[in-house]
Amino acid sequence: MTHVEHLGIAVADLEGSIPLFEALLGTAVYKIETVESEQVRTAFLQCGPNKIELLEATGPESPIAKSLEKRGAGIHHVAFAVHDIEAEMNRLKSMGFSLLNEQPKKGADGKLVAFVHPKSAGGVLLELCMDDPEATPAV
Amino acid sequence: MTHVEHLGIAVADLEGSIPLFEALLGTAVYKIETVESEQVRTAFLQCGPNKIELLEATGPESPIAKSLEKRGAGIHHVAFAVHDIEAEMNRLKSMGFSLLNEQPKKGADGKLVAFVHPKSAGGVLLELCMDDPEATPAV
Repeated sequence: MTHVEHLGIAVADLEGSIPLFEALLGTAVYKIETVESEQVRTAFLQCGPNKIELLEATGPESPIAKSLEKRGAGIHHVAFAVHDIEAEMNRLKSMGFSLLNEQPKKGADGKLVAFVHPKSAGGVLLELCMDDPEATPAV
Repeated sequence: MTHVEHLGIAVADLEGSIPLFEALLGTAVYKIETVESEQVRTAFLQCGPNKIELLEATGPESPIAKSLEKRGAGIHHVAFAVHDIEAEMNRLKSMGFSLLNEQPKKGADGKLVAFVHPKSAGGVLLELCMDDPEATPAV
């Protein structure tokens, strides 16, 4: 894990939260993207080498809808950048950590992602993420 | 705000959590420090430009004891590095954000810190932090 790639923040209303977080961080959202498979709409802000990802549910079965119901708005997960997501998933599995997905899946912002179960990670929902080679056409 | 300085994670038992997070992040804790004024004992791990701060309560009045009671173990706050903490506090106040302390106070790891109230920051407990000039003797 090379650095905190982004911090995911659950919000009830993306349009209302964007000006709030833009004012807080003193920077503008640079991308809004919907991830259909996760039922989330996301907005990204950059802060040096790190990003903040605001997450709004697009349906009642979205993990963000469930999180808002249980814990309210706030920090939802932390994502760490890795060079080789499959190797890192194998390393964690071999050490006894539980993963929420068996294979890397396509996430927002051109990434391949995998999640570690919070029950095996001290209550932290931890995401691994790596640039998706298929998302960036070879030059 | 230049980058995510650290992510604070509330743990019930620091000694038990250190090996877990060392295995998870693949790196060793480099510092353990008690902050008497906050009633916390902390352990730090480095991940590139970012840090993870594990936080254990040292007394029942510790904000970490209250957080564990309310929400259980997991991500507690995010700290952003700033160049000038007083200027940043004034900027946030002028934009309507509520701060939890009127003056910067001494935090762990040689920092001056201030907190933004989660009620004014989308449910996120946000810390500003800056190197404390008094903590680093002039050469």
